[in-house]
Parts: sequence; structure tokens; C-alpha cells
Amino acid sequence: MFTCTGYAAETAQAPLAPFTFQRRDPGPTDVQIDILYCGVCHSDIHQARGEWGNTLYPCVPGHEIVGRVAAVGGSVTRFKVGDLAGVGCMVDSCRECANCRDGLEQYCDNGFIATYNGEDKISGGHTFGGYSRAVVVEQDFVLRIPEALDLAAVAPLLCAGITTYSPLRHWKVGPGQRVGVVGLGGLGHMAVKFAAAFGAQVVMFTTSPSKIEDAKRLGAHEVVLSRDEAAMAAEAGRFDFILDAVAAEHDINTYLNLLKRDGTLVQVGAPEKPLPVQVFSLIMKRRSFAGSLIGGIAETQEMLDFCAEHNITSDIEMIRMDQINEAYERMLRSDVKYRFVIDMATLPAAV
Amino acid sequence: MFTCTGYAAETAQAPLAPFTFQRRDPGPTDVQIDILYCGVCHSDIHQARGEWGNTLYPCVPGHEIVGRVAAVGGSVTRFKVGDLAGVGCMVDSCRECANCRDGLEQYCDNGFIATYNGEDKISGGHTFGGYSRAVVVEQDFVLRIPEALDLAAVAPLLCAGITTYSPLRHWKVGPGQRVGVVGLGGLGHMAVKFAAAFGAQVVMFTTSPSKIEDAKRLGAHEVVLSRDEAAMAAEAGRFDFILDAVAAEHDINTYLNLLKRDGTLVQVGAPEKPLPVQVFSLIMKRRSFAGSLIGGIAETQEMLDFCAEHNITSDIEMIRMDQINEAYERMLRSDVKYRFVIDMATLPAAV
Repeated sequence: MFTCTGYAAETAQAPLAPFTFQRRDPGPTDVQIDILYCGVCHSDIHQARGEWGNTLYPCVPGHEIVGRVAAVGGSVTRFKVGDLAGVGCMVDSCRECANCRDGLEQYCDNGFIATYNGEDKISGGHTFGGYSRAVVVEQDFVLRIPEALDLAAVAPLLCAGITTYSPLRHWKVGPGQRVGVVGLGGLGHMAVKFAAAFGAQVVMFTTSPSKIEDAKRLGAHEVVLSRDEAAMAAEAGRFDFILDAVAAEHDINTYLNLLKRDGTLVQVGAPEKPLPVQVFSLIMKRRSFAGSLIGGIAETQEMLDFCAEHNITSDIEMIRMDQINEAYERMLRSDVKYRFVIDMATLPAAV
Repeated sequence: MFTCTGYAAETAQAPLAPFTFQRRDPGPTDVQIDILYCGVCHSDIHQARGEWGNTLYPCVPGHEIVGRVAAVGGSVTRFKVGDLAGVGCMVDSCRECANCRDGLEQYCDNGFIATYNGEDKISGGHTFGGYSRAVVVEQDFVLRIPEALDLAAVAPLLCAGITTYSPLRHWKVGPGQRVGVVGLGGLGHMAVKFAAAFGAQVVMFTTSPSKIEDAKRLGAHEVVLSRDEAAMAAEAGRFDFILDAVAAEHDINTYLNLLKRDGTLVQVGAPEKPLPVQVFSLIMKRRSFAGSLIGGIAETQEMLDFCAEHNITSDIEMIRMDQINEAYERMLRSDVKYRFVIDMATLPAAV
């Protein structure tokens, strides 16, 4: 074991604060990564504050991790010391169920091991995430990170990136399609970039007139203000696919009605309360309302390679580790364009 | 024009009663059909009683029509006098939009012309349905009826049959799949027959222990009592596809949770109020919640031909025309196995 520093919430009510804990020394198939950057995901807030009711404390959040390999186990073949490496939302899964065998570890029938707040089956206790100096992960769950990209801006690809890339690929978004993205935040801004890169006609839906220009800069071909009823009515039945990244409660039927026959709306933000769905609107055009969860390891690698090839990264605002609590408050006000990333060099060497 | 007798609701409060009206003489592309049998669909009740708020009175319901051709227009090539013929929920559509061109007239962007309560663009006023002596329909919306089957039991195929056949085909239900059917009524009993005929492992979900044996007789391989929480829990994540034929309010999340990864639940019954959907359950397995509306004309013909080949018809209870109001009351108590069909020979020749 080695001593690792990080930032943790000790209780649901406590702000994040410096924290020291133990990590396992790398086993034969483990990769030890010195963390350079860690993105700040909205679920970090939910989890740190116990809002999903399942948080294990102390909680070290962070699942958008980019760093350099500091050590490897004797059986590690895919990484060597000094390589760039990334870790997303998962650090292991059963590897045996049908979903794991299909490379869709995020849907593991036995539950994947989350990067933080998961059951640590090797060291016992629960897993600690990327708001920390280093992390040790099985090589099969470590991603190769292209050298060409801005590393800090790569970190959010590990969650916000793959969460939007995967459904756009699964539902075959591409040229000739009219594709909507609802909500311009961490997920939404990546969805716009990917959908545009895949060749679709991208329409951004936002409540904020102030975001129009930015949405276009990110790649949206059109922007519709979702509170403009006439503008919304004019879009009825025009969309092949809509990706909805809004986690707050909102009227999903408004967007379902924008779909063409056989169109699909995929929700990647997860509102706490059930969303009322008018079945009639599904029936009248054979529409589908679906969900999607991050992406498998192989697809995450594919996404990173695609990003390198197309020079795609997240738009970020870098923060120091000690700014994390303030960053959370700003995220709750949607005051971030579009992802905070922690510069882990700002983490104190010892607490 | 010729004088036609039938049964109509004159107001939302009035019971159905004998009614005399005018039908157009067949134009060049029209087929005039003497109606032998007409199935009784639950939407007939909704429409006769004005429950959808759009009923045009007097209302002659009925869109599960089987009869014999009595006359044809000069340009009719597909039917001759004496042929069996059927009419379902549609008597015309724009024929020009993308959906019509794809043979999916039920999703016509300009709205298909419903067999009753539709805008009659030829004679003016609104269309009158199959609770009547005869009907005149454009040949392209008339179905060929196989001679081999029990004609009365064919009538419900024109709505209950195609409404279940179409989604099972569209979502490619077949061998090796575990398929659920929710609700054993007019639609549900046809869904069981079709899903079994397509080679799937069919599981019937019902609230009624009394329906277990009947479900098996219809083709279900297993029956689960949906109020048995342990039995339902044991089915979690086991289904490739579920067809939900329940129009009453019910907890859809219970059934969404039974789907495997990438599974789809299709609603063909349309509850009036929105159904609350727990988005988390869609996200965690990339599940889809979809709707489906009857089927196109070409697919309806395919379904009828499939039924002839596999000797599939509806389970029916024949009634006289003057029993229709009593039949409505029994349907509201789910007291029918599984579709009432009116023997139109019992309609008085004159009112």
C-alpha cells in the first residue's frame, strides 16, 4: 500500500477537504497513474452530497482522469511507465456476463465497479476517485490517451465525452439527419461537437439567448430557444434524433413531438423524479424514448482516437484543487463553460 | 348516392340506435362492400361517447370490416363483384408524404382519413364506419380477405390484429427471444398468437389468475401474475421485447425493468394521462419505450396472408347489432373473450 493525498467529503453536509488514504501497490495487471487532471462531473456533486442515497464516506469523487503511468505490474502489456493514460467511470466489471462479453461493461449484469463509491474488491472498502494524487487500475480499464491533444481538455471526454458519443454512434447519427441537442452544459456541448463531426445537421435547444453564439461556435447549425413556443411548434416532426442532456425536470413531451416517424429521443441526463410521457405522442409516429449510460471501454478508446483525429476536446475552465467547493456552487448555477477541470499539480503533497 | 342503414350515436350521451344515412355511389376507383361482419374495438366506445373530445355526430363506429364486393368503379382492377374484402382503420391518406410513400399510411403527415369520424373529402361531412349495411372505399385501402378463414373471426384482424402484428414485425420479434405481452384482451390475445407464431418464447402478464389457462391455450409459454411481486422480480432484465396492450393507467416502470439491455417496450394501448417514466431504468440498460399505431395497408395485407397461411384468427363472441350497447358495457368490465363481432345480417333492412 502507499499513502495518497486527495480531497474528500467526510459527510453529506461537509465541504470537500484535504484527505489522506491508502491505495494498493500495483498488482501484476495493474497500472499506477499519477493524475495530472481530473474533470468535475455533475454526479460528483450528487455523490459527495449523498443526494443519491448510496454514498460511502469518506467520498473522493472524480471519474474524468488523465495522467501518466508511474508504475506497471509484471503482466501489464498495454502500458509502460511514462505513457499517458486515462480512467473514466469504471475500474472493473465481472467480465463474464453477456454485456461484458459484448464490450458493454457499463451495462454489466453484475454491476461495474465505479471509479469512486464502488466496492473495492481488491483492497476492501470502497473505491476512491480522481480528486487525488494517483490511482491504481486494472490495465483493461485504462485508456490510451493521444499525445496530440490538450490533456486538461481531454479529461472530460472520459465521462461527458463518451456519454454523448456512445448514443450518437449507437443510433447511427450521421449525414442527412437533423439532430437536436437539448441543454448546453458539460454533456450538451460535447454532443454538439460530436454530432457535427458525424456530419449531422445539429440544432441546439437552449433556454438562454446568451448561449446562441456559443452554440454555433461549438458546431450547432441552428439554435432554437426552447421557451419560444412558435419556434418550437415550427420544429414539430422534423428530427431524426434528439439527445437530451438535461438532468433537471422538464417537459419531455415537448421534445418527443419534434421527432419524425421512427425518431428516437435519448436521455443522458437523469432527472430524479419520473418524467410524465404522453403515450399518444409515441404511438402517433412510432417514436422511441430511450436512455444511454456512458460507454464501454472499447468504445471509449474509439472515441478518444476519434477525438485525436478530429481535434475534439472539451471546452474547460481550469481550477485549483482548493477551488472545488466554489466550483460546485458555480455548476449548480450553470456558471461554467463547459467543464471544470482540476489541475492536480495544485493538490498539496501532504495534508 | 344510396341510402344505407346502420347504428349510430347521435350524441355523446345517447346509446347507439338505428340510423339511416347516404353513402356515395362508387366512383371509378371505388369498391362498394356489403358488410358481413364488423368487429367492436375499444376505441369505438371512446369515440361514440365523445371521450376523446373530437367526435363528430352522428357517429357510426366500426373499423374492423369484412364483407363481399357488391359493386366496383370502372377503373378498379384489384377487386370484382363477389370477392371478399376488408376495411380497417383507414379509408384514405395523402399518398404523397414520405410516410405514405413508404407504405406507412397510418403515419401520414397530413393525417390519414379514418374509416369513421374522419373528414369525408369526397362526399363532404364525416366518414361513417362499419356498423352499417355497406361501405364504399377507394380500392387502394381495401384489403383482400383469404377465403379459407372464419370470416367473422377475421374482422378483428383489421385493427386488433395489425396493431399487434406491426410492432412485432418492426422490432423483429422471432426465435430465441423472450417476449412479454401485457394485458389479455382484444389486442393482447392477438399479440400472443402472433409472437408465438413468429417463434418467440411468449410470456403473458395478467392480473387475473382465471386467465392463465386461456393464455396458454392462445400460445403463451408462460404466464406471470403481475400482482405477484416475487414473480415479477424474478423476471427482471429477462425480456428482449414487451408489447403492452393495457390502455388503463398502470406502472410502466415495472415492465421497463423486465427488459434486457437494448430491449424495447412498445405501448399499443393509449392511456389518457401521461405515464411517469423513471429515466434511470431506461439509462441503466439502454432500454427504449416506444409506441406503435396500427399498420400500413401493405403490411395489413401481409398480416392477413400470414394469418391464412398459419390459420390465425381472433377469438370472438358474435353479437346481434341490437346487442351493441350491452356489449360496450361488458367490454368496460373486460367481459369478452376476446373480441365482439357484430353479425351484420342482424341489422334491420330499414329503420
